[in-house]
Amino acid sequence: MRKPLNFKIEKEIPGKMGRAGVLTTKHGVIKTPAFVPVSTKATLKSLTPDQLESIGAQVTLANTYHLYLQPGDELVAKAGGLHKFMNWQKPLMTDSGGFQVFSLGAAFGSNVSKIAKRDEVQLPATFEQEDLKGRNISENFKPAKIDENGVMFRSHIDGSAHYFTPQKSIEIQHNLGADIIFAFDECTSPQESDHYQGRALDRTHRWAKESLDYHQSKENSERQALFGIVQGGRNEKLRKESAKVLGEMGAGSGPGSGFDGFGIGGSFEKEDMSSAVEWVNSVLPEEKPRHLLGIGEPEDLFMAIERGCDLFDCVAPTRIARNGSLYTKEGKINIINAKFKEDFSPIENDCDCYACQNYTKAYIQHLFKAGEILANTLATIHNVRFIVRLVDNIRESIINDSFENFKNEFLTRYKAN
Amino acid sequence: MRKPLNFKIEKEIPGKMGRAGVLTTKHGVIKTPAFVPVSTKATLKSLTPDQLESIGAQVTLANTYHLYLQPGDELVAKAGGLHKFMNWQKPLMTDSGGFQVFSLGAAFGSNVSKIAKRDEVQLPATFEQEDLKGRNISENFKPAKIDENGVMFRSHIDGSAHYFTPQKSIEIQHNLGADIIFAFDECTSPQESDHYQGRALDRTHRWAKESLDYHQSKENSERQALFGIVQGGRNEKLRKESAKVLGEMGAGSGPGSGFDGFGIGGSFEKEDMSSAVEWVNSVLPEEKPRHLLGIGEPEDLFMAIERGCDLFDCVAPTRIARNGSLYTKEGKINIINAKFKEDFSPIENDCDCYACQNYTKAYIQHLFKAGEILANTLATIHNVRFIVRLVDNIRESIINDSFENFKNEFLTRYKAN
Repeated sequence: MRKPLNFKIEKEIPGKMGRAGVLTTKHGVIKTPAFVPVSTKATLKSLTPDQLESIGAQVTLANTYHLYLQPGDELVAKAGGLHKFMNWQKPLMTDSGGFQVFSLGAAFGSNVSKIAKRDEVQLPATFEQEDLKGRNISENFKPAKIDENGVMFRSHIDGSAHYFTPQKSIEIQHNLGADIIFAFDECTSPQESDHYQGRALDRTHRWAKESLDYHQSKENSERQALFGIVQGGRNEKLRKESAKVLGEMGAGSGPGSGFDGFGIGGSFEKEDMSSAVEWVNSVLPEEKPRHLLGIGEPEDLFMAIERGCDLFDCVAPTRIARNGSLYTKEGKINIINAKFKEDFSPIENDCDCYACQNYTKAYIQHLFKAGEILANTLATIHNVRFIVRLVDNIRESIINDSFENFKNEFLTRYKAN
Repeated sequence: MRKPLNFKIEKEIPGKMGRAGVLTTKHGVIKTPAFVPVSTKATLKSLTPDQLESIGAQVTLANTYHLYLQPGDELVAKAGGLHKFMNWQKPLMTDSGGFQVFSLGAAFGSNVSKIAKRDEVQLPATFEQEDLKGRNISENFKPAKIDENGVMFRSHIDGSAHYFTPQKSIEIQHNLGADIIFAFDECTSPQESDHYQGRALDRTHRWAKESLDYHQSKENSERQALFGIVQGGRNEKLRKESAKVLGEMGAGSGPGSGFDGFGIGGSFEKEDMSSAVEWVNSVLPEEKPRHLLGIGEPEDLFMAIERGCDLFDCVAPTRIARNGSLYTKEGKINIINAKFKEDFSPIENDCDCYACQNYTKAYIQHLFKAGEILANTLATIHNVRFIVRLVDNIRESIINDSFENFKNEFLTRYKAN
């Protein structure tokens, strides 16, 4: 059996778990650590794939939940797969749909869902607020219901009922045909009891095994890599157990057996994230890539990279861009601010993105005030380029043995907000 | 005094007034006839200037009314002018603001305004419906009030009062700095009485003279060309009189004196348009370029080009694109139609646009259903490319002495709707 993925570690951060590597997929190479912009519904909002490629994106991640509901994974398969459908010929990922199934439930305050409210914890931002806007859904709408075999949920589009099992999630992801896909998991809130976390984790592990077995029974496993997702909330014992169980799952049945890599899932409170990542990565097999799901703020990227994470996806850079919030090396600015009205300098003087090379803050503010689509396009280009380049620069600092310097320099200047 | 514009006729349609020419501005050449996509608020909605250039646009037109209100023409001047502000280094036009001042009035049914309701006549589509959407403006809002010196109007954004005179319009257009600007005029409804048309026309001619005198008193006239706007409704006598008065205005005071070209304005009923254009162009000086304002449907383009018009601007291709209505050689299609759900062919098989080269109807329908911005971008690229290329092809047919063949072939196939 051909391997769908190859991962080679090129350099490590001395005395730490962090590393720079090269991930080879059937659609090309990803130099890690790498930021993965999110193309929720088979397009990165407001950009063409050409624009996405021109800002240095090596890979993008589309959402299984959204594409299953619309236009449908079978339609995408008929179209020749997601790469062709969306005109993206570079590496591509899909998530398992698990997170959306639960989070779209939680967003309505349902106690069926196990993710706490968005304002209480820092949720992985793989979820688009726009999905809920303008929908006529009552407060008591309870879309997600978990049983031992899967999750029953209702479409946020039309309320229709659907049932995801691990096999169903993998089937959909086979239809979509991304290079890297994820096992179906239950994403819990960090505020759940250890008792509930334990039960949910057992389920996630059983679902991981079902995902893996089903995947490996299909030819798709020769071209699509499957990542298992580590869960366990904020509990050290559970996190380490999850990393061990998934790390060993299916392994030993030959070279390259078991999962091709790992996702680290969960809804983290900021202060818990670094310990969770450290626990998990101290146990996961070192030679396989690790994707921290739904994380992408600069300070979190440094934290996670030095603790051994290789991949990161997050909708934050694109979502905040559409609200006029733009990254700079000093922190975020809001371009609508009155002080930029006659500011004829670019967002950042030394930024190499298309927006900064060609436009002033005054013009971008004008576009936002005028409600022009180009506002979103330019803001998105800048923010995604900022984060992609930041992670590329972190990689370079690892290769050049200057990670600590680069981190201190960047974080001293950057005011998170 | 250097001339801001040079126009050379290369070839004429035998026995007709139509011609192919080359218009040279301070920012480069426009091969005519040419379609001028509209960048209302200093951006062609949903495209970057790079995308606009890549679909063959030679020139774009921005709206004085909109830019005066936001971000303000003085701000644009401080930014270094509109070319620099919006990052468009090719030829650029601005209109006089007159049409918007009147049409934004008419849209609320005010009898102060002289343009009839949109559903009664075919209005030049230089006006964005979106401007009115979501605005909390009462039915009785009467934004425009004409007197002999100018027009008092209220901003559609915040209701603030403003007064445009010919001098004010030219001042604003000097601040914006486009290569081709227009004299301030009164755009009347074709349904007005001849008596009113006559009075309005006198005003338009007096305003044209004031525009011309003010323009020529400034250095800007060395780099910005001024077009006068012919009016006169559906009345042959008035139309011809207007063409004569404007054609001779300021002429004879030296080579290249008078207006640098002419706009043909007015709100046409479809059946009146061809006679109005014919009347006007039979009188206007042949050696100067003529811009038919607000017209851009394929059948109208053939009609106007063979009657001697050189330039056309229209928001229709971009506006209908955002509703999913797409040009094909057989007529318009609506991409949302159920029959395209699994249609994995491009909008047009032989179209050279980015959308057709890279995407299927099924994908574009998916983007529209999902409310994705890329839907607008791809639809706009296709429609603007369709119209720009059509006019380019008409030009080529004039050069090759095959205009009649090309016209018959195209119009036999194309079903206007």
